[in-house]
Amino acid sequence: MAAPVHATMSLSLDGYGAGSGQTLESPMGDLPGPALHRWMFETPEENAEEQAHIVGASAYIMGRNMFGPVRGEWPVDGEPWTGWWGPEPPYHAPVFVLTHHEREPLEMAGGTTFHFVTDGIHSAFEQAQAAVRERGDDGRIHIAGGVSTINQYLAAGLIDELHLQISPVILGHGERLFEGLGHIPLEQVSITPKSLVTHVVYRVLKPGA
Amino acid sequence: MAAPVHATMSLSLDGYGAGSGQTLESPMGDLPGPALHRWMFETPEENAEEQAHIVGASAYIMGRNMFGPVRGEWPVDGEPWTGWWGPEPPYHAPVFVLTHHEREPLEMAGGTTFHFVTDGIHSAFEQAQAAVRERGDDGRIHIAGGVSTINQYLAAGLIDELHLQISPVILGHGERLFEGLGHIPLEQVSITPKSLVTHVVYRVLKPGA
Repeated sequence: MAAPVHATMSLSLDGYGAGSGQTLESPMGDLPGPALHRWMFETPEENAEEQAHIVGASAYIMGRNMFGPVRGEWPVDGEPWTGWWGPEPPYHAPVFVLTHHEREPLEMAGGTTFHFVTDGIHSAFEQAQAAVRERGDDGRIHIAGGVSTINQYLAAGLIDELHLQISPVILGHGERLFEGLGHIPLEQVSITPKSLVTHVVYRVLKPGA
Repeated sequence: MAAPVHATMSLSLDGYGAGSGQTLESPMGDLPGPALHRWMFETPEENAEEQAHIVGASAYIMGRNMFGPVRGEWPVDGEPWTGWWGPEPPYHAPVFVLTHHEREPLEMAGGTTFHFVTDGIHSAFEQAQAAVRERGDDGRIHIAGGVSTINQYLAAGLIDELHLQISPVILGHGERLFEGLGHIPLEQVSITPKSLVTHVVYRVLKPGA
C-alpha cells in the first residue's frame, strides 16, 4: 500500500508560498516573506502539535532551493553545502532533494540522510515510497517545499493532503503555490486557528469529484 | 465618527473571488465558480449567523456587475433591470452601485434602495457614510463585491475588515481578489470552520504595521 503524501507549507492569504529574493543570508526571501513564518518563531509552544506534524513524516521530498542556496553548485565558499539546518536537521528520516546536480547521499546526525535525485519528481516519489516501505512503519511522505516542488506534485496528482499554515498577510509578490493548476476540488479536513496563523488541512479530491 | 467598513466575499483557496464568464443566466460565472457558494445554498442553517452578518450592514457598496448583467445598458430585454434579487432584495438598506451609467434611485420592497454612483469609489464611500449617519445607528458599511470593487477599496485603504468565506476548492481561473495590492499586513480576528466553508475575519492594518 502506498504511503499517504502530504504537502506542508506556510502561505500568505493571497497564496504566496515565499517572498522573492531568497539568498544565503535570507533563505526565506526578502521582506515581507518572513511574515509567513512569524508563527513558527514567535509562538512555538502554541503551535507545537502542528510543528510536530511538519517534521513527523517517514520520508521527505524537497526542491533544490529548499535544501540549498538558490545559485551556485554544492560547495559554498569552498565548503560542501549541507543544508540550512546545521549538523542535526529536524527531519530524522530520508530526505529526497530534487536537483540537476549529482551528489553522493549525505548522512547527517539524528537520522537525516539527504538523497539527491536527478531524474525527476516521479523518481523521487518512488524512492520516498520505497524508503517508507523499508522502514516498515505506517508513516507518510511530506512534500516539504518549496513552492514549485509542491506545485509540480499537485499538478501530477500525487498529493493526498495539503497541510498549510495561512498567515495573516497579503504579500503581493513571491511565488504562487497554486499557479497554473486549473480546477482541483478539495475537502476540508481540519481548520485550526492560532494567534498568528491558521492551520488548514484539505484533502485533494480527484478532478470532477 | 466614520462607520466601519467591511468587505464580504466568497473566495477560493487560491484567491479567486468568482469564476469567469458571468452571464445573465449564470451571474456567479461558469463552472467551477459556483463551488464558491455551495455553503450558502447547501448548508444555510449551519451558516445562518455568518449569512446574517453579510446582509446586516446599514449601507452597501457594490460594483456594476454585482448589480446587473455584465454587458448591456440598464434595460434588459426591454425591461428596466432591478438587480438579481427579485422585488425584495436581502439588503434592507441603501445600496450604492458603482457604474458609468446614470439612473434615478431605484426603491425596492423591504427598505432596499439602489443608488447609482457615477463619480467613483470615493464618492460612493462618502455617500454610504452619510447614509449610515442619517440612519443614526452604529451600523457598518459593506463592500459587497465584486472582486474588482473590493480590490479598489483595499488599494485605497478604505476597508477595515475582510470577512471572507473560503471554500475548499482550487479554482485556477477567475478574478484574483488581491491582485496588484502589494504588501498589506493583517490581523486575525476570527476563524470559524463549517462543513463546506471556513469563515475568516481579518483586520486590515496600516502598511508598515
